[in-house]
Amino acid sequence: MKPYCELTRAELENLREILKKEYEDVKGKGLSLNMARGKPSSEQLDLVMDMFDVFDSGSDLITESGVDVRNYGELTGIREAKCLIAELMEVDPDNVFVFGNASLPIMYDTVSRSVNFGVNKGTPWNRLEKVKFLCPVPGYDRHFAITEQFGIEMINIPLNEDGPDMDLVKKYVENDDTVKGIWCVPKYSNPTGITYSDETVRAFAALKPKAPDFRIFWDNAYAVHDLYEDRKDVLLNIIEECRKNGNEDMVYQFVSTSKITFAGAGIAAVITSKANLEWIKSTMTIQTIGYDKINQLRHVRYFKNAEGIRNKMKEHAKIMAPKFDAVLDCFDRELSDLGIGTYTRPNGGYFISFTAMKGCAKKIIEKCREAGMVTTGAGATFPYKKDPDDSNIRIAPSYPTLKEMKEAAALFALCVKLVSVEKLLEAE
Amino acid sequence: MKPYCELTRAELENLREILKKEYEDVKGKGLSLNMARGKPSSEQLDLVMDMFDVFDSGSDLITESGVDVRNYGELTGIREAKCLIAELMEVDPDNVFVFGNASLPIMYDTVSRSVNFGVNKGTPWNRLEKVKFLCPVPGYDRHFAITEQFGIEMINIPLNEDGPDMDLVKKYVENDDTVKGIWCVPKYSNPTGITYSDETVRAFAALKPKAPDFRIFWDNAYAVHDLYEDRKDVLLNIIEECRKNGNEDMVYQFVSTSKITFAGAGIAAVITSKANLEWIKSTMTIQTIGYDKINQLRHVRYFKNAEGIRNKMKEHAKIMAPKFDAVLDCFDRELSDLGIGTYTRPNGGYFISFTAMKGCAKKIIEKCREAGMVTTGAGATFPYKKDPDDSNIRIAPSYPTLKEMKEAAALFALCVKLVSVEKLLEAE
Repeated sequence: MKPYCELTRAELENLREILKKEYEDVKGKGLSLNMARGKPSSEQLDLVMDMFDVFDSGSDLITESGVDVRNYGELTGIREAKCLIAELMEVDPDNVFVFGNASLPIMYDTVSRSVNFGVNKGTPWNRLEKVKFLCPVPGYDRHFAITEQFGIEMINIPLNEDGPDMDLVKKYVENDDTVKGIWCVPKYSNPTGITYSDETVRAFAALKPKAPDFRIFWDNAYAVHDLYEDRKDVLLNIIEECRKNGNEDMVYQFVSTSKITFAGAGIAAVITSKANLEWIKSTMTIQTIGYDKINQLRHVRYFKNAEGIRNKMKEHAKIMAPKFDAVLDCFDRELSDLGIGTYTRPNGGYFISFTAMKGCAKKIIEKCREAGMVTTGAGATFPYKKDPDDSNIRIAPSYPTLKEMKEAAALFALCVKLVSVEKLLEAE
Repeated sequence: MKPYCELTRAELENLREILKKEYEDVKGKGLSLNMARGKPSSEQLDLVMDMFDVFDSGSDLITESGVDVRNYGELTGIREAKCLIAELMEVDPDNVFVFGNASLPIMYDTVSRSVNFGVNKGTPWNRLEKVKFLCPVPGYDRHFAITEQFGIEMINIPLNEDGPDMDLVKKYVENDDTVKGIWCVPKYSNPTGITYSDETVRAFAALKPKAPDFRIFWDNAYAVHDLYEDRKDVLLNIIEECRKNGNEDMVYQFVSTSKITFAGAGIAAVITSKANLEWIKSTMTIQTIGYDKINQLRHVRYFKNAEGIRNKMKEHAKIMAPKFDAVLDCFDRELSDLGIGTYTRPNGGYFISFTAMKGCAKKIIEKCREAGMVTTGAGATFPYKKDPDDSNIRIAPSYPTLKEMKEAAALFALCVKLVSVEKLLEAE
């Protein structure tokens, strides 16, 4: 098939009629597909059902150091859970706090704490005229929602194949003391699936922020979420790199098992310097007596060690990879030659990012919706939900079954073609 | 024994020597007792170990409405959990949100939300010159810590046998629009153990606050925590009373199972008007994707209904009541005639409140500590940890064993006597 831009008006008009008919046929099927969120499938959740066999009424719920996890205490998490996370992330357990059921609330609380009480005894951000965050785009909508809610100004930073545009990041961070943070999903980025290069990580670690309370919010949500045994991205250890630069206070790393065990019923952790942890502890002691330590111990007893987690991820990959392949195969077959969109081909994570022709994303999403398929909302991957090109669409292949995913990919490709033809006809 | 105030100086001096010797003997025992916090005992936690048998690897984790609790979703809690709490608290399930592992973080978030984003679209409290909370005293230290952290000015309100001084509450709430809240533990109050009378609850419900964003923080932590079958306090339903007065937005009621199932691994809920719930939902959707629904469903399947919870509380009472009795028997025997302190005799809850002679609380606590017994810190039951009389001490009988509790009560009584004698000698 020729690229659409090389088609004559007559050819385009003819094509539009064919595509319209095809679309009406699909619409008639009454599909109900959901690719909106990065939700694990039931099949994935079934992988860890034996977690419920870890404890029974006769279990011993005392930690190695003698803590009864059924009672109050251990604000910063039980030691075993810190060690499990530390081993997995290749950090010192003393740099780890383990909290509740998911990492989003930890990130939220970290921003909220900075706004209300400052960073390590610094001026609370709510007393400052202006506070800004850098936002590599496209990015994760829930990050942007947090900073928006607190009235923090967000600045778009282009996200390239190897990470954010570090020249721009450096320029902002080192010259503007109102820039207090940057949101990063450094591995299998949400939504493009890229992983920051070693050079990018080193450039982050070497930043000399103008603001002493500037922090990198390193949301390593997909740290162990490889899709393929034979091609895995490797991310440099930011904690280690920052330490080398004497910059250990500059980064908060967040991880969770929400997409390893149960979504919203896992355990989550923050990894950072001891000075940062001390400050976090001093303020969070007012907020809670402690998180659910029973679930922390359940995770430790279930996985035993980092190897246990990595093995489980291989089982996840066996379910996830065919869905990603189904989408990519369909796009390769249906779209690759047409010059009407590009898409990423990630080695891990939960998303494929599609970049349509300018001004087409909203229309494609609307067409999908009309035919029974829900995708992430247009603009969601940008701060203030404003995609300046109206072209990025996040595709989440995890939740539907493989069969549904194939139908969904076909429908999506069809909508891309139809909207693109209409766009080209309009433009003439 | 005569009241100490009737003793001559010589008698007091003689008594001091006897008590000193007794104290040195006890100190020699090297006791290690902890009555500091309202922690359940291991024996109580053992009562619910069969919760771990509720789920196994073959369990069905789908709710009645078809929600898979292992996955994301249901921000405001699963329906079954709302119904369980609603039945227990005699409210409509539509007035209930069920959240995470404990109620303290919900209260914290409720204050934090009001400070940062306002109450039901009102002005955020952090934009106001001054915000005040009323604090019935003695009260719960963790409440006061929250309002202190957010810079909210706290005003002491005397807590009587039937609840806070409602004339004073009314005067403040109805005339001062900087008064935005009041902390209440209305049943088996922390620490005095009193329950608000019907008249008090009705007076609360009938308040006409000057500030439209004034809220009652009704921490019903001990709603079902009776100690004795034959004498139970009954608290009027504040939600119902507020509704009668067209005041349904004025109260947030908080409850949790932290002292019913596992401390810090239970489920917690807020009960309030639909308008308030809508606002809470609209802001918390940024903070979290949702709480641990697996634990919500575990609680529902375990208890089945409110009766299941009430039956479990009878088992708790069998463990708790003898400890309370041990303290009270000891105090009756050792202190009741001496005129050197008064104490409460609650029908439920987790605490006994002791009121020493003015200026003696710190010294008693210090003497206890020196002999190996930790109690709640002096002043803890007052805002800013300032007990104006230095006389109130909170006693938490739940955690030690019965044997330890007897030792602890004896030691405490001894310290009260010794410090009081010294005080009387000083005063002469």
